Amino acid sequence: MIKRIAPEVEVIDITHGIPPQHVLQGALVLANTLPYMPAGVHVAIVDPGVGGVRKPLALRGADERVFIGPDNGLLLVAAERLGGISEAVEIADEAYMLEPVSHTFHGRDIFSPAAAHVASGVELAKLGPVLDPAGLQRLEVPEPSVGEARIRATVLYVDRYGNVQLNLNAEHLARVGIGPGDRVEVEVGFERYFAAAARTFGEARTGDIVLYEDAYANIALAINRGNAAQMFSVRVGDELRLSPA
Amino acid sequence: MIKRIAPEVEVIDITHGIPPQHVLQGALVLANTLPYMPAGVHVAIVDPGVGGVRKPLALRGADERVFIGPDNGLLLVAAERLGGISEAVEIADEAYMLEPVSHTFHGRDIFSPAAAHVASGVELAKLGPVLDPAGLQRLEVPEPSVGEARIRATVLYVDRYGNVQLNLNAEHLARVGIGPGDRVEVEVGFERYFAAAARTFGEARTGDIVLYEDAYANIALAINRGNAAQMFSVRVGDELRLSPA
Amino acid sequence: MIKRIAPEVEVIDITHGIPPQHVLQGALVLANTLPYMPAGVHVAIVDPGVGGVRKPLALRGADERVFIGPDNGLLLVAAERLGGISEAVEIADEAYMLEPVSHTFHGRDIFSPAAAHVASGVELAKLGPVLDPAGLQRLEVPEPSVGEARIRATVLYVDRYGNVQLNLNAEHLARVGIGPGDRVEVEVGFERYFAAAARTFGEARTGDIVLYEDAYANIALAINRGNAAQMFSVRVGDELRLSPA
Repeated sequence: MIKRIAPEVEVIDITHGIPPQHVLQGALVLANTLPYMPAGVHVAIVDPGVGGVRKPLALRGADERVFIGPDNGLLLVAAERLGGISEAVEIADEAYMLEPVSHTFHGRDIFSPAAAHVASGVELAKLGPVLDPAGLQRLEVPEPSVGEARIRATVLYVDRYGNVQLNLNAEHLARVGIGPGDRVEVEVGFERYFAAAARTFGEARTGDIVLYEDAYANIALAINRGNAAQMFSVRVGDELRLSPA
Repeated sequence: MIKRIAPEVEVIDITHGIPPQHVLQGALVLANTLPYMPAGVHVAIVDPGVGGVRKPLALRGADERVFIGPDNGLLLVAAERLGGISEAVEIADEAYMLEPVSHTFHGRDIFSPAAAHVASGVELAKLGPVLDPAGLQRLEVPEPSVGEARIRATVLYVDRYGNVQLNLNAEHLARVGIGPGDRVEVEVGFERYFAAAARTFGEARTGDIVLYEDAYANIALAINRGNAAQMFSVRVGDELRLSPA
Repeated sequence: MIKRIAPEVEVIDITHGIPPQHVLQGALVLANTLPYMPAGVHVAIVDPGVGGVRKPLALRGADERVFIGPDNGLLLVAAERLGGISEAVEIADEAYMLEPVSHTFHGRDIFSPAAAHVASGVELAKLGPVLDPAGLQRLEVPEPSVGEARIRATVLYVDRYGNVQLNLNAEHLARVGIGPGDRVEVEVGFERYFAAAARTFGEARTGDIVLYEDAYANIALAINRGNAAQMFSVRVGDELRLSPA
């Protein structure tokens, strides 16, 4: 669709691998990836409410970035991490849609056409009525609970290696006294494991459980050359408890 | 291969996700997708008979579209939906192939090179002898059996959400008196379920079984925010029976 | 990352489908694929030792090709098959990296930036100190054991059709007297099967077990319109024994 409307535009596909319905996972992948991408018109669609009342959005961000997608919180984590929103509109003018608009495939009929038109120079204001950014839907990104000697963390993402990304950064670990090289007790359900806080997989032996700062500055749990998500039987949204060992 | 022969050509990958051997599924995905794509040289390969007697084809369609692929019916559903074929040739001239041609990878050795040459301006007639379009292989697309109060339908496609596309359109449903908002009895094997004929997922509650017109004007069966193919244990080619409830 | 540094460069994605940690499989796919690709800057990353002591490499090959990836043997099978290496450097100058370099994602922070800079005209010698090609890490590609009437072969690769690529070519088969049309006994563990040495799937009936020369001149085991890897329960690295039947 984009190439039909704007043949000169270059399309970069970040991923088609977000599991169905996982708006939060889509939002986090977008926020982790975009800082490394060229600025552009960023289209993101994880849209369980397609065809319902949620609005299609076009948002102007910093550095001339534009974010296009459904009003379900998907875009905001990335947009705010990249400098915030200066303009928000609802995509409503049918002149910039594929007619007739289907009830179930707004990626094809609304979002991609709008992105192509914006990339070709159409002003956001032409797409539809202005919205108050304060009224946009937001996701609840789960916050860790950091006690005196224990952290309750939530699994945000499992990558294709089975590495388990947590809603933690190095500073959370430091608050319970965990630093590089330390041993860490990890509780998952009624099971208990011991991990090493490591900087890199190169420091660990095959099969070691390591807690490391990943490439997006999040703390993740991994098994060196193994699959941590499988071994711990954890999925996105599960809780893990960490304490110094 | 295409970029080696025709570096200036732009390649758009529709999918590499058709299950092995599923010629009908490939044909339907192609026919559903191409109407939304820019016109071009369309290469499609699902080719269980590779290396056997089936001919490699190049077909000229309407709007300067060219279709390239094996003579097993894969191309015809799309070509006919998009206005029919005005010229058919067998790709036979080795000057437009990668030599030596392997016995098992004609995508690399015959189809992609031919597509690149055609995209660079080579006339179809140069590729090989003219064929009579009436003699091309055709797929049998299964037709539904529509009775007075019951439809026997066949599963054509299961998408990555587990939505089950049937060989039905809204007009078939209307003939047994099923319209938007109606309750529908769905029989799968000896099991019986009740679905709602809905226009959009937004109208249904989480877990509801819905029968909806999908973005290609086919009727599909889905579970709102769930996986219908898994729940009903259906696969491509299975039969479902629908009646007003 | 590449597009940010070198927007004019064209990126072709060969695959993101190599299983985690499978350096040998990555090396073989690269060596099989590159001869059919346009010459360019070839980036390959399967890197279980990321963040450890292994060096990031840039190698100049024949025909102005450049190979970029970790020093774990991944690049050498392809580079040598394509004419050898005339220059090797360690990527060490931080001016050509994304700072700060993470401990776990050198694809983003080291390899892609280096590739983009080289594609934009930066000399290899600028990236870091010269290395002796003789000192680079090499993979052991398993060799078959060819007896008088029996071959012990190793599974190198299983493709998405379940076809099982072996570390054999037609000449190995000829040494035990197996040629096109012959029957072959295949032993897998304690199980024994009979296959036909065929040139093409077109020669075999549905369900036939065939041994064929694949599109890369390797011998592979397949089931016509079936999945051989599943039926034989074999995986990469497993041993098969073949003899004339």
